[in-house]
Amino acid sequence: MGARARRFSTSLLAALAVASCARVGPPAEPAGPTERPVHGVIPLPSSVQLDPGDGFTVDSATVIFVPSGDPEAERIARYLSGLIGPSPERAPEVRVAAGPPPPGSISLATDLRGPVVGEEGYTLVVTADRITLRAQRPAGLFYGVQTLRQLLPPEVEYTAAYPRPLRVPAVRIADQPRFAWRGAMLDVARHFAPVEDVKRYIDLLALHKLNRLHLHLSDDQGWRIDIRSWPDLATHGGSTEVGGGPGGYYTQEQYADLVAYARDRFIVAVPEIDMPGHTNAALASYPELNCDGIAPPLYTGTEVGFSTLCVHSDTTYRFVDDVVREISALTPGPYFHVGGDEVEELTPEEYVRFIERVQEIVTSHGKRMVGWDEIAAADLTPGAVIQLWRPDTAHIEIIEAARRGASLVLSPADRIYLDMKYDSATVLGLTWAGVTDLRRAYDWDPATFLRGVAPSAILGVEAPLWAETVGNIRDIEHMAFPRLAAVAEVAWSPAESRSWSEFRTRLGAQAPRWSALGINFYRSPEVPWLPEALWWRGGER
Amino acid sequence: MGARARRFSTSLLAALAVASCARVGPPAEPAGPTERPVHGVIPLPSSVQLDPGDGFTVDSATVIFVPSGDPEAERIARYLSGLIGPSPERAPEVRVAAGPPPPGSISLATDLRGPVVGEEGYTLVVTADRITLRAQRPAGLFYGVQTLRQLLPPEVEYTAAYPRPLRVPAVRIADQPRFAWRGAMLDVARHFAPVEDVKRYIDLLALHKLNRLHLHLSDDQGWRIDIRSWPDLATHGGSTEVGGGPGGYYTQEQYADLVAYARDRFIVAVPEIDMPGHTNAALASYPELNCDGIAPPLYTGTEVGFSTLCVHSDTTYRFVDDVVREISALTPGPYFHVGGDEVEELTPEEYVRFIERVQEIVTSHGKRMVGWDEIAAADLTPGAVIQLWRPDTAHIEIIEAARRGASLVLSPADRIYLDMKYDSATVLGLTWAGVTDLRRAYDWDPATFLRGVAPSAILGVEAPLWAETVGNIRDIEHMAFPRLAAVAEVAWSPAESRSWSEFRTRLGAQAPRWSALGINFYRSPEVPWLPEALWWRGGER
Repeated sequence: MGARARRFSTSLLAALAVASCARVGPPAEPAGPTERPVHGVIPLPSSVQLDPGDGFTVDSATVIFVPSGDPEAERIARYLSGLIGPSPERAPEVRVAAGPPPPGSISLATDLRGPVVGEEGYTLVVTADRITLRAQRPAGLFYGVQTLRQLLPPEVEYTAAYPRPLRVPAVRIADQPRFAWRGAMLDVARHFAPVEDVKRYIDLLALHKLNRLHLHLSDDQGWRIDIRSWPDLATHGGSTEVGGGPGGYYTQEQYADLVAYARDRFIVAVPEIDMPGHTNAALASYPELNCDGIAPPLYTGTEVGFSTLCVHSDTTYRFVDDVVREISALTPGPYFHVGGDEVEELTPEEYVRFIERVQEIVTSHGKRMVGWDEIAAADLTPGAVIQLWRPDTAHIEIIEAARRGASLVLSPADRIYLDMKYDSATVLGLTWAGVTDLRRAYDWDPATFLRGVAPSAILGVEAPLWAETVGNIRDIEHMAFPRLAAVAEVAWSPAESRSWSEFRTRLGAQAPRWSALGINFYRSPEVPWLPEALWWRGGER
Repeated sequence: MGARARRFSTSLLAALAVASCARVGPPAEPAGPTERPVHGVIPLPSSVQLDPGDGFTVDSATVIFVPSGDPEAERIARYLSGLIGPSPERAPEVRVAAGPPPPGSISLATDLRGPVVGEEGYTLVVTADRITLRAQRPAGLFYGVQTLRQLLPPEVEYTAAYPRPLRVPAVRIADQPRFAWRGAMLDVARHFAPVEDVKRYIDLLALHKLNRLHLHLSDDQGWRIDIRSWPDLATHGGSTEVGGGPGGYYTQEQYADLVAYARDRFIVAVPEIDMPGHTNAALASYPELNCDGIAPPLYTGTEVGFSTLCVHSDTTYRFVDDVVREISALTPGPYFHVGGDEVEELTPEEYVRFIERVQEIVTSHGKRMVGWDEIAAADLTPGAVIQLWRPDTAHIEIIEAARRGASLVLSPADRIYLDMKYDSATVLGLTWAGVTDLRRAYDWDPATFLRGVAPSAILGVEAPLWAETVGNIRDIEHMAFPRLAAVAEVAWSPAESRSWSEFRTRLGAQAPRWSALGINFYRSPEVPWLPEALWWRGGER
């Protein structure tokens, strides 16, 4: 997925971000400070051309137009209407009709033909007369809507109030992602996260055009999804968490609801059941999963490496088959993540044999196996996905597995583990892979990260957030933002147009939007956060 | 409630806030930047004396000690343990026993005698050997715990992680509130707030030693509590909100749960059913409440003054009696708020007669009537409470009512209405009473606000937050903080020790705590917010 034929100009984008905004105030704005600084887009689009002219005004007469017979485009139009309108009564009308879009409308259509922007790309043209968003596929429309959202002033993010009219600068954008896998992982095992909190995280992923949500559903400290054939996993194994709190688990209905919520936002859920290690919660729930037939007590500490399924027992493989079958049936996406990390209680041969048997099970249920990078030691089928995480390995096995046809997702812990502290003053998080400030999360290139691997083997990038020290959604937001925005840009934007100094300025302009969204983001000293009081000098609404 | 016999020194407090903290790091802290700036207490205690010496260290051996036979003290000790411990396993042990507290403990007891600190006051002494918190009544212990919480480093506010040991500076505090009524009002009628969001707000009130939660449960746009004798009020009248969203209402069980949650934090819930105006939601639910017998449609706009109950109809008073009876039975506190504001559809005589009949009903159900300041025109019984809100009236009627025995709660809209914009750049909120920055909310004295009223008539202060433009808890937090902290200090702290310049510095030091709590507070340019990266320069936990 190269970056071909892109017209990109950093100076143009900077102009879009700042200079044009002097014009982007309400028409009758009083004399005085009139600059309305920045609504830069994150991740940076592939190609941006700022046009002269007034741009478009969204007011109470604005209609969102969708051609008849495209229910997905209509659904996305309604989503856009909800983003713009703070309430049902104030949301723009969605009009579905045949024929060309009327003047003054925002039109959405999947009528773009040719390979120009790919499955997830779009073109967005804003003139004084209309906004035209086109894509080949619904995903592209969805991402175009996220770009349009960021061209609108930040006040649209409030659910109950914003000033009208809303101005959008005149611009032409053609955009598509660099990588197919743009992910985030949430560890709901160490501390459980309720459905509403995961949905909130999904919404924040969508804003940044991320498209994979990897859910770490089991670990030593908790099992977080109901398995009907092994009910004690959830009721016993899910009954605690790190530190001894009450834990919790998703019913199958709740899990299906989460997966659907993500899918509606073009995010593929990737369920992970970590095995053969990180399994104490399972081992504590069923004695027969232990080689000695004795269930250990539940575990609420933070050590790793001490637990393993009994890899010589048929019961174990019946268990794995049941779990993979039930979860796969609830998961429309093509992936099943088997973990496979940090196993210290098996010989290398035992480990490899286990992974290969599990690979067969995953394949038999129609899914592609994903695993942490230790699985590279096994004989992987070509569709398998290796998630690189260890910063300190020679990566030889990974490189060889890639040459044999495995795909790689890059999650280097010393770059994009969102649970690493920002600096030594950060309370939350750990430091075993170092402290990772924002620049470290931003300033690297996945294509050149591993020497000896063809760029085509790099499926993409994913930022895990482990939850040993993370107790609620506000903590999650604090560790994820702003670093997840950096990861989103690493995964989406052309390498040749990315620049740390430009990024940090553009990111700083997101402060009013993130504040309006109520994101508990870390005010990193690396970023010139735009003071809220400066972002709009208009009068009373 | 005067400010007698207080030893207070601003310089001492400043020393407590800053200088002492150079010592308040972990014992084995490495060389390098060691300053740990500020954990100032808000609201400012009446008397603070910083002692030389090392202060107290909370570590895994620390016990919270309570004498036998004091279940309320034991409950508060468990609350403190939960505040210090991020999880059940890491929370300090609560030990209930006879005899003196052991060395190395934090002891809580309601054994303070004499009038020194009153019903809500406490003394708190921190030495290297122990922390001793004493009060006359449980409320005092609870407020002492909030002070101790703010002497602990901000990381205790995280639910899943903090560094140990925790240092508390050596200090002697004697403290009591200036005013008995220290309130906040939440408008759950214009936009509905779910139970969990109100509980979150209650927790934030408790941190600031506020003790009244006024719930505005009905208005033109929504009726928010189930009344069993008039069920359509909730199911029809509660079915929308400003802008046409879905609204909502509390079941009686949910309301009772909220009231109990507040009571456990020494916050008295004050329910308001606004009447005779602001009643469109009720009028829309029952035609017989309208003089013409015709129910109007539901209303989702933001105008005021157009609705009124039919004050000549016996049905209306049967309705009022039923509503007051059902809500009063669920409300342990002594107050019932009848609204009474902005009535434009009645003659002054009709209005006064209505309020006086309603006062009889409220009294008959064992409650004291509270009302917005328009009720001062009526013949009020001595226990009645007038809530002053209009900034622009001559206040003659209010002053006369106070002379006849009514109590006053001050909520001047141009000072402490939390829905007024901070400045012209604020998106949320309104400006009809002006913009109210933080200094305006802080820099006034309730005792001298109304000339001609004895200080004893001033029951206290309350900050309302109207919700026309406020759609969720993150919006609520953005409008309330930091201004609500200013109001808390106006209501609690001695007038002679308050200073804007000292307050803004002390408040700025709350940024790490508020960030740990995930409060979506407005980063007002009036405050030197402490950068998170500076607040602790310790090493790895």
